[in-house]
Amino acid sequence: MSDVIAQLAAIVGEHNVILGEEQTPFLTDWLGKYRGRALAVVRPGSVDEVSAVMALCAEWNVPVVPQGGNTSLSGGATPDRTGEAVLLSLARMNRVRAVDPVGNTITVDAGVVLANVHTAASTADRFFPLSLGAEGSCTIGGNLAANAGGVAVLRYGTMRELTLGLEVVLSDGRVWDGLTALRKDNTGYALRDLFIGSEGTLGVITGAVLKLFPVPRARATAFVAVQDVNAALALLSIVRARGGDRLTAFEFMTGDTIALILKHVSGTRLPLETLPPAAVLMELSDTDDEVALIGRLEEVLASTIESGLVLDGALAQDGTQSKAFWRIREGVSEALVREGMAAKHDVSVPTAALGAFVALADAGVKAALPGVRPIVFGHLGDGNLHYNLLPPVGLDQGRWTAEMPALTRLGPVVT
Amino acid sequence: MSDVIAQLAAIVGEHNVILGEEQTPFLTDWLGKYRGRALAVVRPGSVDEVSAVMALCAEWNVPVVPQGGNTSLSGGATPDRTGEAVLLSLARMNRVRAVDPVGNTITVDAGVVLANVHTAASTADRFFPLSLGAEGSCTIGGNLAANAGGVAVLRYGTMRELTLGLEVVLSDGRVWDGLTALRKDNTGYALRDLFIGSEGTLGVITGAVLKLFPVPRARATAFVAVQDVNAALALLSIVRARGGDRLTAFEFMTGDTIALILKHVSGTRLPLETLPPAAVLMELSDTDDEVALIGRLEEVLASTIESGLVLDGALAQDGTQSKAFWRIREGVSEALVREGMAAKHDVSVPTAALGAFVALADAGVKAALPGVRPIVFGHLGDGNLHYNLLPPVGLDQGRWTAEMPALTRLGPVVT
Ligand SMILES: Cc1cc2nc3c(=O)[nH]c(=O)nc-3n(C[C@H](O)[C@H](O)[C@H](O)COP(=O)(O)OP(=O)(O)OC[C@H]3O[C@@H](n4cnc5c(N)ncnc54)[C@H](O)[C@@H]3O)c2cc1C
Ligand SMILES: Cc1cc2nc3c(=O)[nH]c(=O)nc-3n(C[C@H](O)[C@H](O)[C@H](O)COP(=O)(O)OP(=O)(O)OC[C@H]3O[C@@H](n4cnc5c(N)ncnc54)[C@H](O)[C@@H]3O)c2cc1C
Repeated sequence: MSDVIAQLAAIVGEHNVILGEEQTPFLTDWLGKYRGRALAVVRPGSVDEVSAVMALCAEWNVPVVPQGGNTSLSGGATPDRTGEAVLLSLARMNRVRAVDPVGNTITVDAGVVLANVHTAASTADRFFPLSLGAEGSCTIGGNLAANAGGVAVLRYGTMRELTLGLEVVLSDGRVWDGLTALRKDNTGYALRDLFIGSEGTLGVITGAVLKLFPVPRARATAFVAVQDVNAALALLSIVRARGGDRLTAFEFMTGDTIALILKHVSGTRLPLETLPPAAVLMELSDTDDEVALIGRLEEVLASTIESGLVLDGALAQDGTQSKAFWRIREGVSEALVREGMAAKHDVSVPTAALGAFVALADAGVKAALPGVRPIVFGHLGDGNLHYNLLPPVGLDQGRWTAEMPALTRLGPVVT
Repeated sequence: MSDVIAQLAAIVGEHNVILGEEQTPFLTDWLGKYRGRALAVVRPGSVDEVSAVMALCAEWNVPVVPQGGNTSLSGGATPDRTGEAVLLSLARMNRVRAVDPVGNTITVDAGVVLANVHTAASTADRFFPLSLGAEGSCTIGGNLAANAGGVAVLRYGTMRELTLGLEVVLSDGRVWDGLTALRKDNTGYALRDLFIGSEGTLGVITGAVLKLFPVPRARATAFVAVQDVNAALALLSIVRARGGDRLTAFEFMTGDTIALILKHVSGTRLPLETLPPAAVLMELSDTDDEVALIGRLEEVLASTIESGLVLDGALAQDGTQSKAFWRIREGVSEALVREGMAAKHDVSVPTAALGAFVALADAGVKAALPGVRPIVFGHLGDGNLHYNLLPPVGLDQGRWTAEMPALTRLGPVVT
């Protein structure tokens, strides 16, 4: 095997082959839940280097695990414990290749950090909508391999919808050049979409052409209390009819979720009088005319408070307040980590069945393990819910770890 | 082979197996450009029947050509001349299976005509955005197999982006059930996207779940004169910055294209003083507040006329005028057919290269065949251009048919 390592070093340079202790950050996932071992951590600096590494590993039958920002929560970027795999870090490939403000596209290396795409877009007076808690460290390659969603899916879609072209190095080292900037490309089969969401199992993404959008300069944000998921869905219908494409975020949180965030995340403050049974953070955005936009949201709030659908609500008066509302939503991952080990479920359910899903799941897990604490939040408009479980207060860690798989298997079937 | 026909009849019923003369409409394409023969035209009425037909044809090694509305322009729905293939018409499978106004989805049989999806959506106070000249006869299955675009791609994307789930009968008769209504579905590989745009080569689409949207009740339409493609692109940037997501159509036409439409299509009238070198039909739409929307478009027109970018312009004063503007754009296929046989090219080019493409293509074809008449129009915002050629006036049909392939091969390479 030292032969392989020598050949890897010949390709990427010795200082880009990491061995021993220094590998640790690459071999543990963001949650500290998965730990693996690796033959070597390899950090290529170009498509050619990725190609040579893949060809070499194919020749030697060495498994390869690609890694971007290592922020994914499902273990796909962590190698197994055999220590046979090469951990291929794309982090050095972090060049923005081109920004085209006429065609509204940006072409990047796979290792570019999401926040840097935001910056490059806004420098060109454009907007890239994918936005999620890990944006300061996750990479475009990881976003693509995971088909990441985030808070703006409702309006802009997932990473799949935001992508025009891909460049991929296949397992034998061949480069698949699908780096097209075409808005409509009906030539041949849509192989691109096979790579998106494939978690690195079909090839290593090395570059991508992404769509850019006009900058949404106007914004109106509200934090409102509702009774439950079904009330939130009724509100969603109303806001959507009134706001149309302006509706860019509709984030649901249960009261327990909010309480957890307020407890653990510094600088968060409830913008309502009392802790509600559930809340929605909603945002309208538009290219301009903030006054009209806020007026629209105010009208929706007034009518839904009057009808009793919304229990209480706060409308952000400025950017600072809007940020403070978002800080609550964005604090949820941190709050969960601080509270302990959660059984995590990132589920998609047809929107109309969300209410039934939560009711059935809550009933099921509470019957199976009295005192278990569901922490439920998510992108309601996409039918994408984070259904997390915290252990009953005081339950010992060993028992909780043993209980978790059975609770997960309780997952109700709703149609 | 009469054995196969008998077995086909046993599956779909004798009156749904068409033989002889009555096959003709199924064996000629919309343009009358492609003509084929078939063993039989088979009209299944259910997924089970499609499955049985496919299994039978696989067993007998009989090729199958699926057909929906037979409106496609590239010959994919026409069998070859051997007469060995079964033409599988999905037209009888025309049921809207379900409309879900909460989840904003509609589930349909593949044979449902696009216009009927529009009706079903609007009955539920929702909107399905795919819109194209053939919408009165093309089917959802054909739209999917061709990944159809149309006039609203700019805002809503192609058929691919409008689709959540598919049901497909594979070549051996097995049913692939991907009929999910999930907004975000990251389970497994995105096989769905392989079928979309595959022109029926990977399986027969029998059902689909499509996305619905809020009804755009407000609309502002303008027909404006510009110098050329580059001026149109500059205008596009300005309207997009100002209109954002409201911009739903931006259709380009050269002056020659407009002249041809005015000549052949009854009821069309130029809304400008004089025939311009080129024109753009643009439309903003919104859920409500038509007054504000028209104001926005007026401002753009005023400033771009002042700057000289727009040479002349007409703003629709009401729905009737807007329809009249659209009648021009929609008349283009009819006008082409009436003028004669065109060499058709439906090309995608990176938006920023469109101007260079048209200039190079025009120069190339005119040098190769003096007097040739480019008829150029298309969805500029998508980089999707119809680059058609009409023969020099008076050229005989035989000579033109002989020249066409060479002109097509002239296609310039621009990046
Ligand atoms: C605080 C926080 C909030 C989050 N919020 C969301 C959210 O709202 N929505 C959401 O969808 N996700 C969310 N996530 C998870 C999200 O998927 C990741 O943050 C991100 O998409 C992963 O990017 P990464 O570069 O860190 O990928 P990694 O973790 O490095 O890798 C993820 C997967 O992609 C593969 N991979 C990485 N790079 C490549 C490549 N170049 N080619 C091929 N395969 C590759 C890996 O092998 C692995 O399977 C969140 C994570 C955190 C920590
Ligand atoms: C006037 C006019 C305007 C048009 N404008 C546009 C436009 O703006 N944008 C655009 O993209 N297209 C346009 N088109 C072409 C467009 O692709 C078709 O109108 C439409 O999408 C085809 O639908 P169809 O049901 O008629 O398909 P068909 O012509 O019957 O078939 C088209 C292809 O799909 C396959 N197919 C059909 N049904 C199935 C099925 N159920 N399963 C698997 N494969 C199947 C066929 O084998 C064939 O390869 C236009 C056509 C016309 C005549």
